[in-house]
Amino acid sequence: MSRFFSDRHKSLVPYTPGEQPTGRQYIKLNTNESPFPPSPRAVAYAAEAAKRLELYPDPTCGELHAAFAKQCGVEPDEVLMTNGSDEILCFAFNAFCDDRHPAAFADVTYGFYSVFAQLLHIPYTLIPLREDFTIEPEDYVALGKTIFLANPNAPTGIALPLDAVERIVRGNPNNVVVVDEAYVDFGGESAVPLIHKYENLLVTQTFSKSRSLAGGRLGCGIGCKALIADLNTIKYSTNPYNINRMTMAAGLGALEDDAYMRDNCKEIIETRGATMQALRKLGFTVIDSSANFVFAKADWIGGNDLYLQLKERGVLIRHFETPRLKDYNRITIGTRDQMRALILAINDIREALL
Amino acid sequence: MSRFFSDRHKSLVPYTPGEQPTGRQYIKLNTNESPFPPSPRAVAYAAEAAKRLELYPDPTCGELHAAFAKQCGVEPDEVLMTNGSDEILCFAFNAFCDDRHPAAFADVTYGFYSVFAQLLHIPYTLIPLREDFTIEPEDYVALGKTIFLANPNAPTGIALPLDAVERIVRGNPNNVVVVDEAYVDFGGESAVPLIHKYENLLVTQTFSKSRSLAGGRLGCGIGCKALIADLNTIKYSTNPYNINRMTMAAGLGALEDDAYMRDNCKEIIETRGATMQALRKLGFTVIDSSANFVFAKADWIGGNDLYLQLKERGVLIRHFETPRLKDYNRITIGTRDQMRALILAINDIREALL
Repeated sequence: MSRFFSDRHKSLVPYTPGEQPTGRQYIKLNTNESPFPPSPRAVAYAAEAAKRLELYPDPTCGELHAAFAKQCGVEPDEVLMTNGSDEILCFAFNAFCDDRHPAAFADVTYGFYSVFAQLLHIPYTLIPLREDFTIEPEDYVALGKTIFLANPNAPTGIALPLDAVERIVRGNPNNVVVVDEAYVDFGGESAVPLIHKYENLLVTQTFSKSRSLAGGRLGCGIGCKALIADLNTIKYSTNPYNINRMTMAAGLGALEDDAYMRDNCKEIIETRGATMQALRKLGFTVIDSSANFVFAKADWIGGNDLYLQLKERGVLIRHFETPRLKDYNRITIGTRDQMRALILAINDIREALL
Repeated sequence: MSRFFSDRHKSLVPYTPGEQPTGRQYIKLNTNESPFPPSPRAVAYAAEAAKRLELYPDPTCGELHAAFAKQCGVEPDEVLMTNGSDEILCFAFNAFCDDRHPAAFADVTYGFYSVFAQLLHIPYTLIPLREDFTIEPEDYVALGKTIFLANPNAPTGIALPLDAVERIVRGNPNNVVVVDEAYVDFGGESAVPLIHKYENLLVTQTFSKSRSLAGGRLGCGIGCKALIADLNTIKYSTNPYNINRMTMAAGLGALEDDAYMRDNCKEIIETRGATMQALRKLGFTVIDSSANFVFAKADWIGGNDLYLQLKERGVLIRHFETPRLKDYNRITIGTRDQMRALILAINDIREALL
């Protein structure tokens, strides 16, 4: 830290992204990436866009917003695309939270929410999940706070039914409820159809997971026009050209190739089922997942031990060393071959211990 | 504006980017883009990177930082690349300004500085340029404020000599001085060699102009390790994966093809000379420019009139309707053909008036 760093950030603890190994080749099941390449159309459009990089991108993202809005069944001015969904979440914390509108979110959820709150000096409350990691909707009703709800939740993979989401949105008419649907395409029910019914609902999504564009950085918010206008005020005061031409083009290509995304999601869901079954046979407790990962613990090995031993064997999974999570690991669903290799590696570890 | 928008942003007036026309084809001399395509190597690297977008980018930008640092003659942990240079500027306002460290910058300079300050609720002082739009370095000595200095300045194109920059940096040992060198490759002297001498110096640059990557979004900061560490704390609390894989690859390709950039700059500088001469022949006052644009006014037509009449004729230039600037226009230096077309169009307008 330099002696020039503002006092207001001196206790800020940044987010720690999952490992991105650059040396050894791992079976990478630690950051919920898709095991499938992006749509060939996304790749082709991006490569074409790379030829005209001397020109600024369209800051209004006109074409992309129109295509995405059409697919969502909303109007173009009811969507805002950003440089990954972290950016739309950061904009939402900035736009809709302050001392009079503190934030609230689950004690076990996406770890970045508390970092955004700290960065922006927004007071926040953690609402404990039930013992089984599910959300109690009544805990969120009439809170008087801006609510951030990951659905399906991370790192548990548990989805909240749409009627429970609606109960929370309806129960907080004077506060924005942000429903973070990063993993919705793997089995959740989207709240997007509710944006015309509730002016306090903002849904965020990402192209990183189901659309295989983690490396392209494309996220989005969907909400009523007034909410989107506020988020645009933040965007145009932060980084108006936040989405580059190649990412815009790749996003458009991905949207045009929706069938490819649906097929990949179907495959992931099937592989997830087989993986859960195999893990349970190996003595794991596996939470029923609606995401492209599973959250699991074994009674015969600690969470950190399993993480380390798998890493030694060339398989990366994600471990969180916090009290409620430390027995578990979050394992991304890869290809069938990758998951077979995972199960074999776990079997080896188990046999060496027993 | 929604009724949920935080009170602290209710008076925020966002930045207005230059027009990015999507319909009619204009000769586009309004946003200081390069008239030359990116290096073929940048295009090829980006197209290759588009094939692996299912994986997150390296949040540390390891390879790109190493290559850029080498070219700057500094260490990799003395640089930080961002999603355009607007992002590094926003990070710098956030990291190094607060109530006790207000910001200071010229009354005529990059229009985004005051927007960042307003977004972050940082008090700021405007320091008037001299009548001839030059900076008086003594105005900046011992200010007790965090200083933002565009060099060459925009929209004037005037460069401050390096010894004057050093005088300002040395004269504010307890405050960060940010030297924004977006246009330095077109005739300015870079302050980068001074970063090992002054721990309070942060230099920012962009790949948008001289490297033809405006559409790729790549900016950077260069400073001592402690300053860069602070900026990384902000980055990892905002958007750790802020640079996508394609942009990272394009940046690397552009760095490897430095000769291409130098050739393009040489061509722009020659065309700038010819353009200035032609404008002066047409009765314009043209400020000597060290950037890829010129700032000029005529005694026979108002600034806004010229802008509108050129737009009608298919040539876009940039007009600022503020008291000190309204007689002038900022004109980007394009290809020789584009500048010939500009001069012909201005000649037509003049003949119609006289």
